[in-house]
Amino acid sequence: MTAAEILTLPARKGRACRLSKGQAIKIINTHGHQVVDTWAFNAEDPREFMSHEHSRPLTGSIFPKKGEHLHTNRRRSILFFEEDTSPGVHDTLIASCDDYRYGLLGCTEYHDNCTDNLHAAMRQIGLVPPDVPAPLNLWMNIPVASDGKIVWGEPVSSPGDYVVLRAQIDCIVAMSACPQDILPVNSGKTVEAHYQILS
Amino acid sequence: MTAAEILTLPARKGRACRLSKGQAIKIINTHGHQVVDTWAFNAEDPREFMSHEHSRPLTGSIFPKKGEHLHTNRRRSILFFEEDTSPGVHDTLIASCDDYRYGLLGCTEYHDNCTDNLHAAMRQIGLVPPDVPAPLNLWMNIPVASDGKIVWGEPVSSPGDYVVLRAQIDCIVAMSACPQDILPVNSGKTVEAHYQILS
Repeated sequence: MTAAEILTLPARKGRACRLSKGQAIKIINTHGHQVVDTWAFNAEDPREFMSHEHSRPLTGSIFPKKGEHLHTNRRRSILFFEEDTSPGVHDTLIASCDDYRYGLLGCTEYHDNCTDNLHAAMRQIGLVPPDVPAPLNLWMNIPVASDGKIVWGEPVSSPGDYVVLRAQIDCIVAMSACPQDILPVNSGKTVEAHYQILS
Repeated sequence: MTAAEILTLPARKGRACRLSKGQAIKIINTHGHQVVDTWAFNAEDPREFMSHEHSRPLTGSIFPKKGEHLHTNRRRSILFFEEDTSPGVHDTLIASCDDYRYGLLGCTEYHDNCTDNLHAAMRQIGLVPPDVPAPLNLWMNIPVASDGKIVWGEPVSSPGDYVVLRAQIDCIVAMSACPQDILPVNSGKTVEAHYQILS
């Protein structure tokens, strides 16, 4: 890894970046309790994207882990999950939050949300996401019981924990610092995270 | 319920039908061991569709059950899960099979698949699916361990078991009699199922 600028993913906002095949993104949970919704799209055709329902048959698990590949809806690797200094608790089951969700949670005014953040982040680099795939919710703690019940847990990660995801094809990675401050998934505090592009 | 024609979902093929709000579809596992991949789209705007990652936060479970609603990517009910005579084992975690999947499973020739069946079924009624959402895999038995590991189980349903899904908005329901004959999800035998439109 070469030294690279540390970039800010602002609290409650989104960012997207391009990775060439072989480059990686290091996503840093600076404060330890911030969920980062993460998406990946094929740079040449964003209709191909990271898709958990297509990954699960290949990894045999609903929880992606260090050392595994993240696959697309065309059943090939888009990112390799190369490093993870956290306890490895990440979610793939829950959609990114959106305006509809905050309405159901009682909000009567606009609430920042990860779905709008994805669209804004992609527009910042000149793209329109063709879809809103289920994100990789880094550090989101959604335990699943054997009867299928899920609960909203608080993050179990620590300040400075990071993951490294290495591009297996030229791709776009988009992130949103989840603004969910009604449920406990961000421990009630929505803060910034950081990221670096690594060669 | 009024008497209605019993229609065939041919082995390894797909069908789609329109339901007005208040109508229901009864999907019958005629032989007891056939998985039926099922999708639902808003008839007025098929970019709104049944989406498990949006349903799970509302139902608190990864296994949809009788008495629950199935929600769309706009967080409203599209189908109410009204009846289920089977033990209630259905999957939402696994993508519909496709050409890429059978290639990875060693097929060198074309293999019938649920993704192509969805497209063909929609075309038969003059529509193009805007997306291939994760299906409701009726009777597909994918147990999830507490560590997140999943396995490919055989169906636990019996001949004649059925579900009734009642439309909460005008919608399209598409189905595919899953042609998966390499993994044990259909007990190795891919057969027809049946369905009825109920008032």
